Amino acid sequence: MGRAADRRVVLRVDLDATADGRTLTRRPDTLAAEEPLEIRVGAAGPGRRRPLSVTMRTPGADLDLALGFLFAEGLIRSADDVSTAQLCAGAETPNTYNVVDVALAPGVPEPAAEASRQFTTTSACGVCGKESIEAVRTRSMFDVAGDPLTVPAELLAELPQRLRAGQRGFDRTGGLHAAGLFTADGDLVVLREDVGRHNAVDKVIGWAVRERRLPLAGYVLLVSGRASFELTQKAWMAGLPLLAAVSAPSTLAVDLAAEAGMTLVGFLRGRTMNVYTGAHRVSA
Amino acid sequence: MGRAADRRVVLRVDLDATADGRTLTRRPDTLAAEEPLEIRVGAAGPGRRRPLSVTMRTPGADLDLALGFLFAEGLIRSADDVSTAQLCAGAETPNTYNVVDVALAPGVPEPAAEASRQFTTTSACGVCGKESIEAVRTRSMFDVAGDPLTVPAELLAELPQRLRAGQRGFDRTGGLHAAGLFTADGDLVVLREDVGRHNAVDKVIGWAVRERRLPLAGYVLLVSGRASFELTQKAWMAGLPLLAAVSAPSTLAVDLAAEAGMTLVGFLRGRTMNVYTGAHRVSA
Repeated sequence: MGRAADRRVVLRVDLDATADGRTLTRRPDTLAAEEPLEIRVGAAGPGRRRPLSVTMRTPGADLDLALGFLFAEGLIRSADDVSTAQLCAGAETPNTYNVVDVALAPGVPEPAAEASRQFTTTSACGVCGKESIEAVRTRSMFDVAGDPLTVPAELLAELPQRLRAGQRGFDRTGGLHAAGLFTADGDLVVLREDVGRHNAVDKVIGWAVRERRLPLAGYVLLVSGRASFELTQKAWMAGLPLLAAVSAPSTLAVDLAAEAGMTLVGFLRGRTMNVYTGAHRVSA
Repeated sequence: MGRAADRRVVLRVDLDATADGRTLTRRPDTLAAEEPLEIRVGAAGPGRRRPLSVTMRTPGADLDLALGFLFAEGLIRSADDVSTAQLCAGAETPNTYNVVDVALAPGVPEPAAEASRQFTTTSACGVCGKESIEAVRTRSMFDVAGDPLTVPAELLAELPQRLRAGQRGFDRTGGLHAAGLFTADGDLVVLREDVGRHNAVDKVIGWAVRERRLPLAGYVLLVSGRASFELTQKAWMAGLPLLAAVSAPSTLAVDLAAEAGMTLVGFLRGRTMNVYTGAHRVSA
């Protein structure tokens, strides 16, 4: 079944035993796979590159995950910034080495030793949401505020079922987040699944990096869970004018979307939704 | 409403407008708060301690979050390893500085510069789930395999509604994960909510560190979402014999629980559940 899912024997308990009269059943169950992925980054050449990050992810689209992560962190600006990106060669088939090695193009600065996922702290003792937003503003290359996209609310309401219909992994495991990129007409362009919702988004953005589709002006990104600060940051970095989530956003996600001029839709369920920012892009 | 939630104006869209005949309504909405928290750790004394981690979290129980994080990462082994833990003093009330400063007791090693959330990689090019599990095994102080806890399946089935009944933040926002610690009799001992599920668990474990309740032998931890490798790792570090999740576990969570001799229950919903490991602790 590939490396994205695997089976384990499970004891199924049904206290009402309505199905077959048995309270306890031992049976195989299909689970979403989770494995570490180490991303190594450095200058091209024969030397060993430095580990930048280890993320727990569902195997598959690993190169896209690495490219999307590096892009969203502001460490690469396009596919041209990458000389080579490859899974470390292992003796095994399939390759279970779980290491993506990224050689940067000449002239691209290597990440600082203190690196990634740190926020700039400007005062001797203090870090706040406003500073976090400012750090993203500094790094994003794209102006999403001026994006002329408008989407009918009727169309938005259809997207969750289109995403769900494409979620082959969820069907099997019930345990995967999804991120889907849609055109303004509601066509699904790319869908990625992962145990980590940030990974699913990184895989979509990495696809766009590799396919040279950035910025993702005029597109809609739908995520199956909540909209956090981190997901909103990734969407802004990729130049997306509209981020929609099936579940709730956080305060900082809303504040960041407002700062970016991005449209943020939450609780997109059935025939209802909440538009938190950029309501001019949603037509009723 | 405290700092755990805040309000934003939202455009509510109801395409069927069954409630009041209006498709669009502008109204205030309560959101789960998300703010960065920086954890600084180092030797006691007047010098400035080094930032170890920045996590996006819901404000509240910040000292417990820091203690739980440090404990789950194996950096402290009990409250005795901490000299002082405090929010950096800010001029504002409430304190919005979002920095917890932890001074270690004399003799406790400071975290290495490369620090935390890294996995040991044993070969020149390779990192796998087995090595991740081995790394946790090395660090956990507690043997959970021998824990004699047994819980009736009927009792387990009641825990999600008890957790849900205690989730004040979720009621207001619809956007918070929860982690609840229960006795073997199903009494809720402590419940914490957060936008990040790992933070909710860290807050529970930090409470146990502070209250000197570790190891949490004989207790049940219930989480409102999925069971990942990371949450299972935290549970093992705290000596918990049973981890239950409302949603799906991953393969690596199941493999780690098996290695630990921990009971892992998933899809705990209504009158049904899946017992992935340690089924001897669940009586029918």
